[in-house]
Amino acid sequence: MGSIDASERTVTGWAARDAAGHLSPYTYTLRKTGPEDVVVKVLYCGICHTDIHQAKNHLGASKYPMVPGHEVVGEVVEVGPEVSKYVVGDVVGVGVIVGCCRDCRPCKANVEQYCNKKIWSYNDVYTDGRPTQGGFSSAMVVDQKFVVKIPAGLAPEQAAPLLCAGVTVYSPLKHFGLMTPGLRGGILGLGGVGHMGVKVAKSMGHHVTVISSSNKKRAEAMDDLGADAYLVSSDEAQMAAATDSLDYIIDTVPVKHPLEPYLALLKMDGKLVLMGVIAEPLSFVSPMVMLGRKSITGSFIGSIEETEEVLRFCVDKGLTSQIEVVKMDYVNQALERLERNDVRYRFVVDVAGSNIEDAV
Amino acid sequence: MGSIDASERTVTGWAARDAAGHLSPYTYTLRKTGPEDVVVKVLYCGICHTDIHQAKNHLGASKYPMVPGHEVVGEVVEVGPEVSKYVVGDVVGVGVIVGCCRDCRPCKANVEQYCNKKIWSYNDVYTDGRPTQGGFSSAMVVDQKFVVKIPAGLAPEQAAPLLCAGVTVYSPLKHFGLMTPGLRGGILGLGGVGHMGVKVAKSMGHHVTVISSSNKKRAEAMDDLGADAYLVSSDEAQMAAATDSLDYIIDTVPVKHPLEPYLALLKMDGKLVLMGVIAEPLSFVSPMVMLGRKSITGSFIGSIEETEEVLRFCVDKGLTSQIEVVKMDYVNQALERLERNDVRYRFVVDVAGSNIEDAV
Repeated sequence: MGSIDASERTVTGWAARDAAGHLSPYTYTLRKTGPEDVVVKVLYCGICHTDIHQAKNHLGASKYPMVPGHEVVGEVVEVGPEVSKYVVGDVVGVGVIVGCCRDCRPCKANVEQYCNKKIWSYNDVYTDGRPTQGGFSSAMVVDQKFVVKIPAGLAPEQAAPLLCAGVTVYSPLKHFGLMTPGLRGGILGLGGVGHMGVKVAKSMGHHVTVISSSNKKRAEAMDDLGADAYLVSSDEAQMAAATDSLDYIIDTVPVKHPLEPYLALLKMDGKLVLMGVIAEPLSFVSPMVMLGRKSITGSFIGSIEETEEVLRFCVDKGLTSQIEVVKMDYVNQALERLERNDVRYRFVVDVAGSNIEDAV
Repeated sequence: MGSIDASERTVTGWAARDAAGHLSPYTYTLRKTGPEDVVVKVLYCGICHTDIHQAKNHLGASKYPMVPGHEVVGEVVEVGPEVSKYVVGDVVGVGVIVGCCRDCRPCKANVEQYCNKKIWSYNDVYTDGRPTQGGFSSAMVVDQKFVVKIPAGLAPEQAAPLLCAGVTVYSPLKHFGLMTPGLRGGILGLGGVGHMGVKVAKSMGHHVTVISSSNKKRAEAMDDLGADAYLVSSDEAQMAAATDSLDYIIDTVPVKHPLEPYLALLKMDGKLVLMGVIAEPLSFVSPMVMLGRKSITGSFIGSIEETEEVLRFCVDKGLTSQIEVVKMDYVNQALERLERNDVRYRFVVDVAGSNIEDAV
């Protein structure tokens, strides 16, 4: 870090300056370490599709300069006086949110990701009025409540995608009672979240069908990721044969798509779990849910508790994510490749190994 | 009945002859009473909105002549040799379905209403190859599995609407874990099913909000049906104030309508339960379900078990439906009035009191 002064540290991040979304080095100060704050030196940070949406202002609420990154693994280098969970030297993770109201029904139920006053890890305003900045940076200051321990046995670069993509698939499977071995699940879309969906569902003992628009990903789904079946959604005969066969579908498609072909694949009481933030309306006819008591639902990342759970789950099951580790100066190319889905399956930036402070 | 011969009884029903949907007397024969069959002399039969859809071929699969009616209360006048549940003289009910495969997952889970091979009470073909005909008739022959006992303490005309409208609201509240006292529920639409929704939800100890497009039904919702609150969906300020306030909404609207205003009213984990068969697609944007883990789901009538439950529930709670009893020769006017929503809240035809066999 640029400063080791305990008041306000000067750090370097890679920031977007406008809706072009191009990241470049940017120097800023972190807040003074508060009583419950943990200062994290960033080691690795995954690249999520949301980073593109935010950097390019696809959601219309972007403020610049913006340092993206919300799959952050780092080392604790300082703790505030009231920090009880962590000590200097711990390897920890920070995900999508860094604050919540602590008083609403979701907060009291420990599902703070549904708090209406949650504070996003970047492109948000912290309680001190300053912008939050994410993990493509030499360091972050984060309240200990929003920091998780990376368990022994999990490489830090492996842990990064679990903090968003991993918990995003784990949380709904747990919440909706879909962890029972033997269930039949569908994974729609094979990107960062989808590939994690296959791995997590397989580790739960499910029969996993990857559903894709073409045959292109068959080999990687079956051979590399270990899916049990592969279904081409444009093949009407295949789809008809699979009617009424799945307990759930994790739908990771981030663009408008029809829901009815997938509702038809569900058994009675089956659940279509939407994971893609899609601005255009999705549609269906009501008998498709009524006749079979099916649900169209969705889920948003996961709680801190569930994040800790999915990390342990991956250690216990020996589950690893498939990642491509890149340096910080490759981040713009990585974002471009991600945008055209040209990555198997998650980019992780080796932040500490990129000497980003020298780049300023 | 026209015949007391135990082979094939000749009966009179009121049938639609074409998509005009006008009902007139029609003579036909019932199947010979099988070993597990119950012969029911019809006393009362409720008029459901579906009867209009079927009589007028709105769903495109109507066959004529068609005797509608699936909220049937009658008296057992004969039983087959293997009937164990009923004896002659019992007052019983018949609802929307009269057959199922008994072998699929829904059948084995006693939710035979979700069997893909279920047989509808009318406008369907029975196992003997003959058309099924409904309750606007002097008698029906029904397998005992699809017959329920009307408990003492429930007038037969009061019981009729429970066999479809009543169980239709009871079943999802039970299935989705929404019977807990203190929940806050919304009822969207105040027709036959909606009015029953208010009464059943109130009897479960819920705080009930009726949601309607105008103020027209405020007095009847609050004063006559006992709702706790009334929300005008076209009033943006009222709707905004009610954001994030309901555990569930029973959506009985039978025509295309936006879902987002109602999804916004739901709390985290809230459920929008669709009850209206609507051919036009309904739409929503995915963040409306993701951010709050809300569900859009639906439900279709209820099981035989749940039908027996709702009948007992209504006796226990002293719950009565609001009905207008009419004679058979008024049925066409009643269908016209129902079509323009001019009934508070359910027509029930006094079939036995209509001397329909004399009309032939």
